[in-house]
Amino acid sequence: MMVNLNETAALLLNNDNFLLLCHISPDGDTVGSATALARGLVSKGKKVKILCGDKFTSEYSFMFDGLEMSEEEPRFIVAVDVADPKLLGAQYKKEYGGRVDLCIDHHSTNVIYAAKTCLEPNSASAAEIIYLLLEEMGVEITPEIAGCLYTGVSTDTGCFRFSNTTVRTFQIAAKLAEYGADYYNINQSFFETKTKTYAALERLALEGMRFYFDGRCAVICVTRSMYDETGSNEAETTKLANLPRQVEGVKVGVLMRELEDGSFKCSLRTHGEIDASLIAAKLGGGGHVGAAACTIEADKDKSTELILKAIEPEICDEDSALK
Amino acid sequence: MMVNLNETAALLLNNDNFLLLCHISPDGDTVGSATALARGLVSKGKKVKILCGDKFTSEYSFMFDGLEMSEEEPRFIVAVDVADPKLLGAQYKKEYGGRVDLCIDHHSTNVIYAAKTCLEPNSASAAEIIYLLLEEMGVEITPEIAGCLYTGVSTDTGCFRFSNTTVRTFQIAAKLAEYGADYYNINQSFFETKTKTYAALERLALEGMRFYFDGRCAVICVTRSMYDETGSNEAETTKLANLPRQVEGVKVGVLMRELEDGSFKCSLRTHGEIDASLIAAKLGGGGHVGAAACTIEADKDKSTELILKAIEPEICDEDSALK
Repeated sequence: MMVNLNETAALLLNNDNFLLLCHISPDGDTVGSATALARGLVSKGKKVKILCGDKFTSEYSFMFDGLEMSEEEPRFIVAVDVADPKLLGAQYKKEYGGRVDLCIDHHSTNVIYAAKTCLEPNSASAAEIIYLLLEEMGVEITPEIAGCLYTGVSTDTGCFRFSNTTVRTFQIAAKLAEYGADYYNINQSFFETKTKTYAALERLALEGMRFYFDGRCAVICVTRSMYDETGSNEAETTKLANLPRQVEGVKVGVLMRELEDGSFKCSLRTHGEIDASLIAAKLGGGGHVGAAACTIEADKDKSTELILKAIEPEICDEDSALK
Repeated sequence: MMVNLNETAALLLNNDNFLLLCHISPDGDTVGSATALARGLVSKGKKVKILCGDKFTSEYSFMFDGLEMSEEEPRFIVAVDVADPKLLGAQYKKEYGGRVDLCIDHHSTNVIYAAKTCLEPNSASAAEIIYLLLEEMGVEITPEIAGCLYTGVSTDTGCFRFSNTTVRTFQIAAKLAEYGADYYNINQSFFETKTKTYAALERLALEGMRFYFDGRCAVICVTRSMYDETGSNEAETTKLANLPRQVEGVKVGVLMRELEDGSFKCSLRTHGEIDASLIAAKLGGGGHVGAAACTIEADKDKSTELILKAIEPEICDEDSALK
C-alpha cells in the first residue's frame, strides 16, 4: 500500500521499538536519512536501532554521535532508501526482507516490497523526504539532524550538480544550513578530501580511461590488482564514478570495478538526456535517470562488451533524435 | 567614502550611461555580477556597457545573450569585484583607474580607490551583494539575471564547498533557483566539464605533485612546456588550484603556474584555519582567507623556495597552536 507523508508521520508516531534498515554499500543518503529519522524518533521518546548489511565506514561515524541504539526486540521495521530487499544484503534480506512495515524511498525502481511504501521518485534524495516527514511529525530540527540530512541531500546530488537537483533541493539545503548543519565540514569530507591512496588510484584509473561511440561514452576500469598497486580499496572507488562523464562530449560515463568474485559492478552516469537506469535495467540493475548501476558476472573483456552493447542503442537513439 | 546597499541603489538609480568594469583574468563572479547588474540597469531604462582588460572566454558568453551594449560615452563608472585598480589591466587602469565612481566588492583587501565603495568583506561573492542590490533597486529578477548571479555565487564558493560559504549563500542560491536560474547547465559548465586537453594537463600536473611540511602543504607546478605536451593552455589552469588541498592532511594547497614572462603565479588554497591572503600578501599578492594569489618574478626553483618560506611560519604557527 502506498502512503503519503501525512500517513507516514502518523504511522511513525503511533509505533515504537523501531528497526531502521539501510542499503548495502551504504552512502550518505541511506545513512543520513536513517540517522536523521532515528534522532527524530528518539526526540519523540521512541526506541530505535539502525542496521546495515555492510559496515559503516569512518566518514559516516559523526552521524551516529550521541545517538543511543535500542537493545529491544524491534517491533516496527522501516527500510530507508532501499529500493529492493536484496539491497539489505543476504542476511538481513532473509531476516527482515519479508516483513518490512514501511519503506521510505525515492527510487522509481522500488519493487514495492514493504507493507506500506512512502515513495517520491522525483525527490533527489531520501533525505529530502525525511526532512519533510520530520517537519510533519513536529520534530525540532537540531544541528545534528540538519547535518545528517544535509549529508544525504548533498551526497545524492553530487553537491547540487546532478540532474536530479531541484529548486526544492536548494530550498531544503538552505533550511538545513539555517538549522545549523555543519555543511562546510560535511562538504570537505565528502567532496574535497582524497586520501593519498585514493589520489593514486584515481590517477591510475584515469590513465586507463577509454572512449567509445565517437567520444560519447567513456569507461574507466578498476581491477583488484590496482588496489594492491595503490594501497587503495573498493570503498574508495565510488568517487571515481563521476569522472568519466566530466570529459567534454561524454554522454554516458562508466566506472567498472572488479568485485571479489571476479564479476564487474558497472556504475553509469549520464547528464540526464540518456536514462542510465534503462541501460542498467537491461543487465539486471537499476537506479535513477542520471545515475544507475548493475553487476555483470563475466570477466573484464566480456563485461565491457556487454555494457557497451547495452549503451549503444541509447546513444544511437539520442543521435538520431538530434538529426 | 563607504556606502551601504541603500545608498548604492540610489546612486545607480540616479545616474545613467554606465560603464561596468570587470577584473582581468575574469571569473564567474566578476562577469556574473557585471552582467546581472547591467541587465538590472537596462530593465530600469539605463544605458550600460561592460569592459574587461582581458577577453571573456566562451564559457561566459551565455551571460551576455540579449544584453545590448551602449555606444554612448560613459558617465558613471562602476568597478565590480575589483579590489585594486591594477586588476583593471594596464590600459583600463590608466584610462579609468583614477575615476571610478563606485566600486562594489567583497574583497577585504580592497584598496578603497573609488569615489564611493560598497564593500561587504564577509560576502562569499560579489554576486550576493548584487542580488541584494537589485532587490533594493526593485529590479525584477528574470531567469537570465538569476543565471548570471548564480554563476557568481556558485563559482566563487566552489559550488558551496569553500569556507566562505554562509547560510545566506544557500538562501540566495535557493532564491535564484526559484527565479529560474539554469543551475544545472551552469554547474555542468563550470564544475563538471573537462576538455580532453585539460584532463591531460590535470593528469600531468597531479603526477608532479610534491608534499612539504609533513604533508601539510602540497604543490603542483604547471610549466609552459606542459601546455605544448597536452594541447592545453593557461586559461584552463585555474581549475587545478583546488586539487592539492583535496589531499587528506593538506592544510595549504599551492598551484604554481609559469606565466609568459617566466615568472610564477601562485594560487593558494586553505581550509580557512590558515589565512591564505596573509601568505599571499607577503609576496605582494592578496585575496581571501581560503583562497589567495601572488606572482613571483623568479624561476621555478626560486619561486618554490619563496612561496614555501612564506607558508612555513603559518603552518608552524598552526602547529604550535594545536599543541
